Amino acid sequence: MDPSRAFVRDVKRVIVKVGTAVVTRSDGRLAVGRLGSLVEQLQELNVQGYEVILVTSGAVGVGRQRLRYRKLLNSSFADLQKPQVELDGKACAAVGQSGLMALYDALFTQLDVASSQLLVTDNDFKDPEFRNQLSHTVNSLLALRVIPVFNENDAVSTRKAPYEDSSGIFWDNDSLAALLALELKADLLVLLSDVEGLYNGPPSDSKSELIDTYIKEKHDEQITFGDKSRVGRGGMQAKVKAAVCAATQIPVVITSGFTRDNILKVLEGKKVGTLFPTKGMLKEIVASNREISPRDMAVSARDCSRRLQSISSEERKKILLDIANALEANEAKIRAENEADVAAAQQAGYEKALVSRLTLKPGKIASLAKSIRVLANMDDPIGQILKRTEVADGLVLQKTSSPLGVLLIVFESRPDALVQIASLAIRSGNGLLLKGGKEAMRSNTILHKVITGAIPASVGEGLIGLVTSRDEIADLLKLDDVIDLVIPRGSNKLVSQIKASTKIPVLGHADGICHVYIDKSADMSMAKKIVLDAKIDYPAACNAMETLLVHRSLLKSGDIKDIIFELETKGVRIFGGPLASEELSLPKAESFHHEYSSMACTVEFVDDVHAAIDHIHRFGSAHTDCIVTSDDEVADIFLKQVDSAAVFHNASTRFSDGARFGLGAEVGISTGRIHARGPVGVEGLLTTRWILKGSGQVVNGDEGVVYTHKNLPL
Amino acid sequence: MDPSRAFVRDVKRVIVKVGTAVVTRSDGRLAVGRLGSLVEQLQELNVQGYEVILVTSGAVGVGRQRLRYRKLLNSSFADLQKPQVELDGKACAAVGQSGLMALYDALFTQLDVASSQLLVTDNDFKDPEFRNQLSHTVNSLLALRVIPVFNENDAVSTRKAPYEDSSGIFWDNDSLAALLALELKADLLVLLSDVEGLYNGPPSDSKSELIDTYIKEKHDEQITFGDKSRVGRGGMQAKVKAAVCAATQIPVVITSGFTRDNILKVLEGKKVGTLFPTKGMLKEIVASNREISPRDMAVSARDCSRRLQSISSEERKKILLDIANALEANEAKIRAENEADVAAAQQAGYEKALVSRLTLKPGKIASLAKSIRVLANMDDPIGQILKRTEVADGLVLQKTSSPLGVLLIVFESRPDALVQIASLAIRSGNGLLLKGGKEAMRSNTILHKVITGAIPASVGEGLIGLVTSRDEIADLLKLDDVIDLVIPRGSNKLVSQIKASTKIPVLGHADGICHVYIDKSADMSMAKKIVLDAKIDYPAACNAMETLLVHRSLLKSGDIKDIIFELETKGVRIFGGPLASEELSLPKAESFHHEYSSMACTVEFVDDVHAAIDHIHRFGSAHTDCIVTSDDEVADIFLKQVDSAAVFHNASTRFSDGARFGLGAEVGISTGRIHARGPVGVEGLLTTRWILKGSGQVVNGDEGVVYTHKNLPL
Repeated sequence: MDPSRAFVRDVKRVIVKVGTAVVTRSDGRLAVGRLGSLVEQLQELNVQGYEVILVTSGAVGVGRQRLRYRKLLNSSFADLQKPQVELDGKACAAVGQSGLMALYDALFTQLDVASSQLLVTDNDFKDPEFRNQLSHTVNSLLALRVIPVFNENDAVSTRKAPYEDSSGIFWDNDSLAALLALELKADLLVLLSDVEGLYNGPPSDSKSELIDTYIKEKHDEQITFGDKSRVGRGGMQAKVKAAVCAATQIPVVITSGFTRDNILKVLEGKKVGTLFPTKGMLKEIVASNREISPRDMAVSARDCSRRLQSISSEERKKILLDIANALEANEAKIRAENEADVAAAQQAGYEKALVSRLTLKPGKIASLAKSIRVLANMDDPIGQILKRTEVADGLVLQKTSSPLGVLLIVFESRPDALVQIASLAIRSGNGLLLKGGKEAMRSNTILHKVITGAIPASVGEGLIGLVTSRDEIADLLKLDDVIDLVIPRGSNKLVSQIKASTKIPVLGHADGICHVYIDKSADMSMAKKIVLDAKIDYPAACNAMETLLVHRSLLKSGDIKDIIFELETKGVRIFGGPLASEELSLPKAESFHHEYSSMACTVEFVDDVHAAIDHIHRFGSAHTDCIVTSDDEVADIFLKQVDSAAVFHNASTRFSDGARFGLGAEVGISTGRIHARGPVGVEGLLTTRWILKGSGQVVNGDEGVVYTHKNLPL
Repeated sequence: MDPSRAFVRDVKRVIVKVGTAVVTRSDGRLAVGRLGSLVEQLQELNVQGYEVILVTSGAVGVGRQRLRYRKLLNSSFADLQKPQVELDGKACAAVGQSGLMALYDALFTQLDVASSQLLVTDNDFKDPEFRNQLSHTVNSLLALRVIPVFNENDAVSTRKAPYEDSSGIFWDNDSLAALLALELKADLLVLLSDVEGLYNGPPSDSKSELIDTYIKEKHDEQITFGDKSRVGRGGMQAKVKAAVCAATQIPVVITSGFTRDNILKVLEGKKVGTLFPTKGMLKEIVASNREISPRDMAVSARDCSRRLQSISSEERKKILLDIANALEANEAKIRAENEADVAAAQQAGYEKALVSRLTLKPGKIASLAKSIRVLANMDDPIGQILKRTEVADGLVLQKTSSPLGVLLIVFESRPDALVQIASLAIRSGNGLLLKGGKEAMRSNTILHKVITGAIPASVGEGLIGLVTSRDEIADLLKLDDVIDLVIPRGSNKLVSQIKASTKIPVLGHADGICHVYIDKSADMSMAKKIVLDAKIDYPAACNAMETLLVHRSLLKSGDIKDIIFELETKGVRIFGGPLASEELSLPKAESFHHEYSSMACTVEFVDDVHAAIDHIHRFGSAHTDCIVTSDDEVADIFLKQVDSAAVFHNASTRFSDGARFGLGAEVGISTGRIHARGPVGVEGLLTTRWILKGSGQVVNGDEGVVYTHKNLPL
């Protein structure tokens, strides 16, 4: 449930209004599929105990279409040659109404719901007794779980120019819905449209954004209903007017009637459509600062990152030192908040490993501060000249390093990750959105506050945004126009889910299915040492060995049996591929494409180095793979052909790590092939810019200069 | 239309069968929303002139649910305490059938379509006269455009254990549908399921793939209907059996009844669901080699690229030289095919610019061959050592360049792009999928044939796949697990569409909204030269100037008026921002975020360099932006702060180009920030691998070695 939609918890009576655009198709006939979905949703709400009231339009158009059809059937050829007169609107309404209600009744009946028809006119409402009685009737129907279906009684209404005159008590079905919502004391009004809600520009323009919460002061100016940039189609203006009117007392949501399940989603508190909150709700929404949407945060992070980039290297260094000091100065506060998180997690019965990752152990703040100071003293990674070329006389091209822009870090549990990543982002001139787990909410909030407190106003604390709302990660991952890179720090599952659901580039790895291949020429004591380290040093790590491949010539070798025995002695469960399980009487592995992440591994025999390479390409995850051999030719084949991020000869897979590689701070390990691969240091947070300095050179059909393309020293 | 589905052109009579899972919801009630969509689709087909027959199930379940409800209503409290007996199946069928038919009738009636009920039993079909008469009745109904709705007459059928006994003439609604399809000589049978079609594994497993064309010999083994890996749910086995049976004479498609519009898509020839072709069709499908799906092509391209990578640099060079020779040797053939394309395009009335891009002009083959030879003689970009580090004593880490993997190039018109890209891919060791425009089909086919003909068998001609089927680009863009990078070569629209619809990284730029900013200290004659070149040298290029920003102090300057006059004299239409349009009486620009790509531009005045930078960040596309100034301090601010791929000082934006930058072959210009930015040379097709060579080193909790992290010379 989105916090801004928490009010739905208190909703009991809900009015749903469907307009002509939802009820009918472009050919004027009833949109029977959409109506079926609508009725299914209303039945579901009815079953869930909501009091459901439907306000429908569409009768006139449907009647016109049916009468035209009727007339055609009854026409002689001669009739058709006469000038055709327009059908009477009242007659159309009368015919349409009965067809529409018959269909509603047929659909509701199938779902064992009774519906009832209530046709009202503007005039009716002038009588206070009518209002009183209407309330009473509706209450009686709702008490019997009957769904009242309202429509304007167009067939008998005497109201003039019904779609233009807005001086009456109501003037169209939107205002009727708003009136009924107030009159019948509903808790929520849902207006279904043919677009997803109210946009701040024409919905057809890709730059227009859906407004999720309408705030009159903020949006009234942005939105123009003019001819050229009208918002929405099909009477969005009428809907907004009705919504603003009803929202004086009850919340209103405008959303699409074309998307299945939208009404149910609204009542689940999902952020669909545009909410028109009441004044009381608005205060709460503004007070809790829900208005800073992740999108706004990302835009602000980019602005601040540009300022961060434009200050001097010394100033950036100072920010990091200030943060280190601030962390130490606030250690007590940070620890208190962290302890509160830990206590809550223990009480909630979270598993031990999670609680352990959540805990900031004694000395952790000090060590974080220390590593930030190391980072501060590092060479500035921004503005490095990577390449210089003389393009032509007096025309010099430079390729320089520059920040990527805005990073989104999604991390689980570990609050120390927040500190590490924030300092890396500052060092590399990037803006940052942080989305932590809710179990670390208090720790993250205080750490974020301390860190942003140390960022000078000239840069702006918006540089680092902490997404605290319970927005689904999925919503964040849609912001591919304002976020440049996502870095997930957490379980394989988290990474897979993120990779599967975003167009933003993801830096990370879902699987770490690492292999060690023991060649026939291997030094067997070296092989044993490497295999044990690769599996046992830290079995849950992504660079731990999952599969041990062995040259077939070692099938009967005592050394292999010894390695397996040693693994088993240390507590490793061994599974075999088809051949190994048979030869060595091992339990059969379910799949070669499997990451145990624990004290377990698969063993299989392969014909030779080529078969090992094929196996790795087929079942591996292109993370880190190792050959143990004394034959340099064989090693060369392996190193040259294995298409993984890291390929090792005679060294444990566990070396595949940013710190061990000497990259300094590690951003992550990427199994992607784009941008950065394998263990990634701070360079993974950088991109490049081309700077060209000239003295008035022009291209002029490539006659403007004489190209020299000379490499210049850096 | 997909070529494997071309048969739909000849379809007139179509039978659609909906099973219980589609017709009813999990609570046993009718799925009124889905039925509404179904009826809308059948009406649409009816209107389009198809003869539509519906076979439906669901009556028994619906009846059971309604009878239960009825019984509950009629039960006294005492009744409810008695043991409840199961409801009679025949009674349920009788009740259900009438409810189901009433709803179909109500829905069809709303859409002005007449439907009719035909209840049949197994027994009926034993009578040849019945069969004869049934055909006759159905033909009469169809002639009146009435939709016959078939169901088994469960209420009166004497067939035992109707859902188990498969010895009868038909034994369930799937086999009834198949029987009717044959009996009534339908041209197509569509079986609607609750999954998208037949998968080669459990649909819940993300590794399972939808089979688009079922070939008994190929798929029978792959598919197991056992408990553990059963295919589909809800009687997929029965559907496959019925489909195989009917497909002896007419094609069958199994697809989902949950997805709106699937039936319409099937009849449009879209590749939805699983097609069971007839034997005659199958031959055609196999013959035209439609079976090599883009996915298979990508997998094969990756395999071949690994082989390409493992041969020597000299061998790769030889392939390129062989291709150059082959192109020259086949020039006559290539030109003939190209001329055929050009003639067809002219006849089809394509616009002149397209025909011009399509044409391989005299000398083009020679110049392509020449540039391939230049590429062949270039330093090998693969296996370059980019970084060497001593991690510990005897443990050396290398970062080496390696191919990205598989590229997908989507290009419009220009067949020469195929040759350039293919040779770049070979040079950089990558596999390639090519998807060209259909207007260049014959040219692309011959070029592809000549090029792959020169690839040795040791690598495999699968290295470069030409996607010739009319598969939608959207389908290709879904292959993010087997394609590493998409490079679109074509219009902005093509690039935007591709970027919007894929998770595969895209190298390219959608917009090129480049700015020239004239500072107050600019040398005005230099400014004039640069502005004219930036706009006029090639106005349609992405690096052409679209917006001219001018320092406010030059508001009344004659020089600016002179520049504008000069632009206008050359035929450039000038539009003004709010200020410039007022001051200089220019027509107002509609938006600053606009790429004219023609002889037109926008002019606006800004307060200073900071305002210029803000304007560029707000409205630009981060492609190439230029400042003209004699003040180095101001230039520095601009060069440092403008966050675009290329930022120029006193040089025309037109220099932003791979060839002019001296990058050799240009892959494209990227406005993305990840992987490669700005003009991209062959390095954009490369990634890196980490190679670690040791002598048995292990990590052992970081006690295994003493880290030295010394940079070594390359």
